[in-house]
Amino acid sequence: MSVHVILPDGARREFPDGTTGLQVAEAISKGLAKVAIAVRVNGEIWDVRRCLPAECALEVIKEDSPDGLFVIRHSAAHIMAGAVRRLYGSGVKFGFGPPVEDGFYYDMEFPDHVKVTEDDLPNIEEECRKIIAADYPFERADVPHGDAVRRMEELGQPYKVETLRQDIHDPTASLYTDGDFIDLCEGPHVPSTARVRALRLMKVTGAYWRGDPHNRMLTRLYGTAWASQKALDEYLRRLEEAKKRDHRKLGQELELFLFHEYSPGAVFFLPKGAILYNELLAFLRREYRRRGYQEVITPQLFNRKLWETSGHWEHFRENMFVLSVDEEEYSLKPMNCPSHMLIYQHRRRSYRELPMRIADFCALHRNEIRGVLAGMTRVRKFEQDDAHIFCTAEQIEGEVFGCLDFVRHVYERVFGMPYEAKLSTRPPTFMGEAALWDRAEAALKTALEKAGVAYAAAPGEGAFYGPKVDFFMKDAIGRDWQLSTIQLDFQLPRRFGAEYEGADGQRHVPVIIHRAILGSLERFIGVLVEHYAGEFPLWLAPVQVVVLPITEQEEAYARSVHAELTGAGFRSEIDLSNQRLSYKIRAATLQKAPYMLVCGAREAASGTVAVRARKEGDEGVVRVDEFIDRLRREIGV
Amino acid sequence: MSVHVILPDGARREFPDGTTGLQVAEAISKGLAKVAIAVRVNGEIWDVRRCLPAECALEVIKEDSPDGLFVIRHSAAHIMAGAVRRLYGSGVKFGFGPPVEDGFYYDMEFPDHVKVTEDDLPNIEEECRKIIAADYPFERADVPHGDAVRRMEELGQPYKVETLRQDIHDPTASLYTDGDFIDLCEGPHVPSTARVRALRLMKVTGAYWRGDPHNRMLTRLYGTAWASQKALDEYLRRLEEAKKRDHRKLGQELELFLFHEYSPGAVFFLPKGAILYNELLAFLRREYRRRGYQEVITPQLFNRKLWETSGHWEHFRENMFVLSVDEEEYSLKPMNCPSHMLIYQHRRRSYRELPMRIADFCALHRNEIRGVLAGMTRVRKFEQDDAHIFCTAEQIEGEVFGCLDFVRHVYERVFGMPYEAKLSTRPPTFMGEAALWDRAEAALKTALEKAGVAYAAAPGEGAFYGPKVDFFMKDAIGRDWQLSTIQLDFQLPRRFGAEYEGADGQRHVPVIIHRAILGSLERFIGVLVEHYAGEFPLWLAPVQVVVLPITEQEEAYARSVHAELTGAGFRSEIDLSNQRLSYKIRAATLQKAPYMLVCGAREAASGTVAVRARKEGDEGVVRVDEFIDRLRREIGV
Repeated sequence: MSVHVILPDGARREFPDGTTGLQVAEAISKGLAKVAIAVRVNGEIWDVRRCLPAECALEVIKEDSPDGLFVIRHSAAHIMAGAVRRLYGSGVKFGFGPPVEDGFYYDMEFPDHVKVTEDDLPNIEEECRKIIAADYPFERADVPHGDAVRRMEELGQPYKVETLRQDIHDPTASLYTDGDFIDLCEGPHVPSTARVRALRLMKVTGAYWRGDPHNRMLTRLYGTAWASQKALDEYLRRLEEAKKRDHRKLGQELELFLFHEYSPGAVFFLPKGAILYNELLAFLRREYRRRGYQEVITPQLFNRKLWETSGHWEHFRENMFVLSVDEEEYSLKPMNCPSHMLIYQHRRRSYRELPMRIADFCALHRNEIRGVLAGMTRVRKFEQDDAHIFCTAEQIEGEVFGCLDFVRHVYERVFGMPYEAKLSTRPPTFMGEAALWDRAEAALKTALEKAGVAYAAAPGEGAFYGPKVDFFMKDAIGRDWQLSTIQLDFQLPRRFGAEYEGADGQRHVPVIIHRAILGSLERFIGVLVEHYAGEFPLWLAPVQVVVLPITEQEEAYARSVHAELTGAGFRSEIDLSNQRLSYKIRAATLQKAPYMLVCGAREAASGTVAVRARKEGDEGVVRVDEFIDRLRREIGV
Repeated sequence: MSVHVILPDGARREFPDGTTGLQVAEAISKGLAKVAIAVRVNGEIWDVRRCLPAECALEVIKEDSPDGLFVIRHSAAHIMAGAVRRLYGSGVKFGFGPPVEDGFYYDMEFPDHVKVTEDDLPNIEEECRKIIAADYPFERADVPHGDAVRRMEELGQPYKVETLRQDIHDPTASLYTDGDFIDLCEGPHVPSTARVRALRLMKVTGAYWRGDPHNRMLTRLYGTAWASQKALDEYLRRLEEAKKRDHRKLGQELELFLFHEYSPGAVFFLPKGAILYNELLAFLRREYRRRGYQEVITPQLFNRKLWETSGHWEHFRENMFVLSVDEEEYSLKPMNCPSHMLIYQHRRRSYRELPMRIADFCALHRNEIRGVLAGMTRVRKFEQDDAHIFCTAEQIEGEVFGCLDFVRHVYERVFGMPYEAKLSTRPPTFMGEAALWDRAEAALKTALEKAGVAYAAAPGEGAFYGPKVDFFMKDAIGRDWQLSTIQLDFQLPRRFGAEYEGADGQRHVPVIIHRAILGSLERFIGVLVEHYAGEFPLWLAPVQVVVLPITEQEEAYARSVHAELTGAGFRSEIDLSNQRLSYKIRAATLQKAPYMLVCGAREAASGTVAVRARKEGDEGVVRVDEFIDRLRREIGV
């Protein structure tokens, strides 16, 4: 007997029976073995020390990969539980302890007299460190189900017993031991505790057993774990930075927007937030003009007949706000596509009109559950930079290329956010002819390649009505946001009976491309506030310049400077308070305005201003008209 | 006994008993007597030949005044009924025959075998003319109620009998006779039939007796009547012109907007209509910036608690679209004021922030009865150029002056629509202190006078929460539209408990000025389409220039001209069809674009275009850059 392994590059290797993943990694290279934290065996993630089956596709999982981190965090949860058991004794009962995004948690029931708070975390963390330093191997044992139950009963672990009885129906169950801690667990885990190289316990909350409020409230300890101290430090810095950048906090401080209980999930844009909003719209409209889009303005309330035709009544109704009008059911629109179908359909269309690119910024409403509403990122009322492109099958590639160019322009050149794309193709159940799908998918790939956009393929993940490309943008502190999307739709035109007369005089069904570049404007503004930490570039900044007279003597001069800036079309404010200059500078700094113009006696006498840039600081004294030219150059007008 | 008359100028005159209004008019001047069509006696309109009471305030009503026309049209209805009776015999039964705006109608039941259509109107009109030529006096007889019933029974007029029995509870009723026609009627009427100097029968429709569909359907004959043939001709010309300008017709022809049964009362702005809409918004935003307004963007769905606070739940609920959200009642906002209150209230306010001018273009919904929805002028969904000015009592005059200046700029300078204002002051029941009202009304008057705005006073017609100024704009064919409004509000800030900290450190209640310049944007665009008959000025025109290559030879050149115009920011179209130039010119003329640029071989060779202006026609050949400069000058950029 021997083990036949197929490596990711397609190479086949033969090993003796009983070979482990770690041994395969070692056979490839010592370096690889050192960072191997687990292996993917026929698609499943396994411990590196588990013996391989006779035939397998094998991939070594490195400790700093997403899957590697997942394993590290899972093991970290065990380490934390072991530390708690050491500190608080065998009376602690353990629930579930899974890895989650960026970290892990473990739910525990402490004895009645014990109350664990965040103050206790450093102590528990210290104990974790001892376990890590001891470098206990994680040992897996597959035991008969009954033995596992008995073992957990002996250990006084009722939640584990319940889990075994309710959720595990296999004849065997796996137990993992690291040092003196044993746990019921599917794995996989790191080879030994020292491989959890960086760990930090974060917070303590309550959580019902199995998330059910009828059950007992357990204590949930959260932590994070990384493949290196450096990665942990970076993560903590990012968290700190994210907290400072939180758009809800900055939105209030900069008076951009507010929320009110009388309209949950709907943003009130205050004057400065409305400037951001309107500048984004003006920017998009300039691009629309360059790119041959036509804007329309559409109603918000539609008879259910429209939603029945579009299919939303059947599939999306519970997310719609429905009301009775003229004794019929109407709903606030959750998306624009059906209204654009009515516009397309209002008269006969010819191939000469295609591609027809219809854009719309109208308000959309979706009835999200109140509990999930969160700042600008989960709202009930929003607008999208939404457009629908009606085109022929031949035009798909060119149109998608145009959208890709639009995405690149906006994110690479304007907002400075790198991104990745994901191409989702035909699912097992799909609508329309396979030939059209093949052609469309080929067009999407060609367009992506011609545009030089890196993309991951997600075969089978397309919607049933067409393939799509989703984009994931990285903000200034490295977080990913799904913002742009390009979706082909073979279904909607058929549901509405949309047609055009071809050059051949025959009737044809157009393809529709749904696409959004920023996505929801509300969400995008939330992302942008955090991306820039409120320090918007000049063209977007709600206040572009603050004029600061040093004393009352320069007020008249400062007013003239302010008027000159305003007259030139810039958003200027003037601080006429009786405060000292240092105070005024502090106040203007909190506003995060790109420029302050200090006006003292010398400046007033010479028609100049002392420029302080937000980033660069003191930039010397210039004439007002020179400064205005400079603003114009910077903004590109 | 004698008659004491007080004339409008306050003069008192004494006349012998039995003097009529006509005799008073004659005593004043022969000329006045000639145009006297009725008299206002103690506020009521009377026949000129009725004997005056012992004491009365008297005003002579001239035939071309609104009240005079009302009397003329009422008499015209009798003349038409008399003509019908002459032509169709005594079997015709008459219902009601009142004057209405611009004309009159009479509802009649014809014998079963008679079917009157619009083809019959010239014949009836001819008979009317005979009655007018005969110059029968209109004679009034006040008879006992029972006599009137008997008389109408004798005449075979069951609707008149029913009216007498159901609606007339006085001991006497008045009958009017002109020639051989006698009618139950309150009057008043012209002295004699020849005073209906110009009459035209317009159309025939059906109408239920008393407007009730359970009753019999009668035949309604419409006509119009004027004080002179010239006025009638002018009216018919205006009607013809209005028909050509009808925004529903032009909206379709120019592809500006459409309506759809799935969203009754809501406008779909097609690409060209959206350009109009967005240009108007951009224009307003430029003005807002110059005038110190701040724009906000607010939600649309609000908890009923907000409407209870504002008072709309009590007074406006039946006009609101109400729906259930999170098991509470919410409604789509019918107006912006309450959301602006929430914005004002979100933090403490200081007198330094006042006046605060908050503008908002968000969508509003009002549940108008479906039957009254009409084009853009009666809609369910609309936006306003709405703003609320929060100010101190001292600031009212200055703020109202600013609004008046805004109105003047927009209508006099930009749209060329003269207007009149109406100042409505304190009603008998009012809210707030009388002193504040006095002060505010004085401020309004001063502002109107300083701004040189002519206004009519409407004492007692203000809203209970504050005085207001309404504006009536005259369009290009002389129709009046109520568009702008400035309303003071002493109530809303109190309902919301709005305050500001004064310079004195005390809390004060601000005054709110609601004001709109264009009013509903939808309605305004409807008015504008008719005002300009679709021939929008350059800055508003959805298509500003159409480029017309004469043959295929000039296509490349025409494209370069088109690209140059587009690049310079103008809205250009190019006609690349295979049609002849005359056809292309006709097509572009239908679009009503301000300019066509014809590109022939000579133009292509010399880098020029042959300019055809919409109004002025052929304007010769110019270089493309010269033409662009000219567009820039015309648009004022």
